[in-house]
Amino acid sequence: MTQRIKVTVRFDGTGFAGWQVQPNERTVQGELEHALATIAGQPVRVHGASRTDAGVHALGQVFHCDWSGPKGLPELRRSLSQMLSPDIRVDAIEEAAPDFHARYDATDKRYAYVCCMDSEPDPFSARYAWRLPSPVDPERVAELAQQLTGTHDFAGFCSSGSAVATTERTIYAIALHRAPIVGPPESATHWRLEFHGDGFLYKMVRNIVGTVVQIARGITPDDRIGELLASKGPFEGHTAPGHGLFLVNVAYRGGPPSSASGAAHAAQQQQQ
Amino acid sequence: MTQRIKVTVRFDGTGFAGWQVQPNERTVQGELEHALATIAGQPVRVHGASRTDAGVHALGQVFHCDWSGPKGLPELRRSLSQMLSPDIRVDAIEEAAPDFHARYDATDKRYAYVCCMDSEPDPFSARYAWRLPSPVDPERVAELAQQLTGTHDFAGFCSSGSAVATTERTIYAIALHRAPIVGPPESATHWRLEFHGDGFLYKMVRNIVGTVVQIARGITPDDRIGELLASKGPFEGHTAPGHGLFLVNVAYRGGPPSSASGAAHAAQQQQQ
Repeated sequence: MTQRIKVTVRFDGTGFAGWQVQPNERTVQGELEHALATIAGQPVRVHGASRTDAGVHALGQVFHCDWSGPKGLPELRRSLSQMLSPDIRVDAIEEAAPDFHARYDATDKRYAYVCCMDSEPDPFSARYAWRLPSPVDPERVAELAQQLTGTHDFAGFCSSGSAVATTERTIYAIALHRAPIVGPPESATHWRLEFHGDGFLYKMVRNIVGTVVQIARGITPDDRIGELLASKGPFEGHTAPGHGLFLVNVAYRGGPPSSASGAAHAAQQQQQ
Repeated sequence: MTQRIKVTVRFDGTGFAGWQVQPNERTVQGELEHALATIAGQPVRVHGASRTDAGVHALGQVFHCDWSGPKGLPELRRSLSQMLSPDIRVDAIEEAAPDFHARYDATDKRYAYVCCMDSEPDPFSARYAWRLPSPVDPERVAELAQQLTGTHDFAGFCSSGSAVATTERTIYAIALHRAPIVGPPESATHWRLEFHGDGFLYKMVRNIVGTVVQIARGITPDDRIGELLASKGPFEGHTAPGHGLFLVNVAYRGGPPSSASGAAHAAQQQQQ
């Protein structure tokens, strides 16, 4: 019997050339497909909600696949845990509707982008934050980013190399938190922007962060945001590096509301 | 001119066979001495406040050495940053009194021991917490540990292999915090004990944590703590693994009070 399954995974992106399978590269999708195929004894194709780039981390990536292997879901989860390397962890496996699609059915996503203003790399958090070349005022960065909430054609913030039906997206909220996602507690030098939206274009979060940080540093003029929104793209400017980005959560209709389930929420609670 | 200098460093202990120089092993002291000797053009001997074991991390280890190299202290710091690998970072270099000794002059130290109750290793925090084989009640563990605050002969919690003048030590406080030191924000499964004392014997914190966790799990009887205190040692029992332990802070007379300078304090503030 074949069943469609929905799997939630987290991964440390440091050791991967991104999500998507590429020849001769270690990728998250590749590792998952290899482990699943080994257990099933036949090829398994994995469809991720988000195609994260090299270095990008995930606390709650979701994928679907069709499973006709010999094992039940709890047993499959245990086998995967044993086979996967320590930088990937399966957090949940559930049966899904036969037509469930991890990417097309996602109703909203949360990303966090972490910056730090340490003068030297921190052994515990350097892999999980963009160390800015010079300090900026995080409040000012967040204020600049706020201009992008709402529904816009984000083509001007989309890097070339993607093919999507429409470049209109809605950002529900962009929130500033003064703490790292992964790192020691002295967080005075760390801050992050959390993005909640119905979807994000190729490199859109990193292009937004790169742009607002460049404006806050006085390198790019303030009206660059409006210019980029008015442009048809592709994005031209400073893309923030992949290792500061976390895919926090992907939500689906009928699932728990992402505001109550994501790591972002847990982080907020912890800070209170 | 030779001057004695006091250096504060942090390191991720994952890739080290501990602090102390050992033949054919990568150690923190070894890396520091190699970098300093390369800059100075002559051997430099480093004296650490604490001889941390393999896997143990530090947010605030202190060492002293005598510096007669060609560079001033700000320049020395920059050169060290360039030479040291990303798992060690120099946080401060200051001139010290000619008779300052990082180990003998320390007035108090703070350690944190992090446990987690995840059913599977977390990619972001597994290197920084002891994943317990079965869940325990952290409140109960903390309550058990409280019996050890105050001044005691801790010989029964000291592993063999150390030579110290006296095995009497004072633990000022042991506090429970429900968060990891390094890890993602969903911390429900993470907790740590923070130890503040005038000094700690060889593996004493790990032996205390190992014992109270075994009691809380029902594997060791409650009166084991009293038995160990009454024994003359060396410790016999379960030593918690090194990778859950952080040396948080070493304080000195005349320096800033450790309660206001350590990472432990920053962590407390962050949680409020």
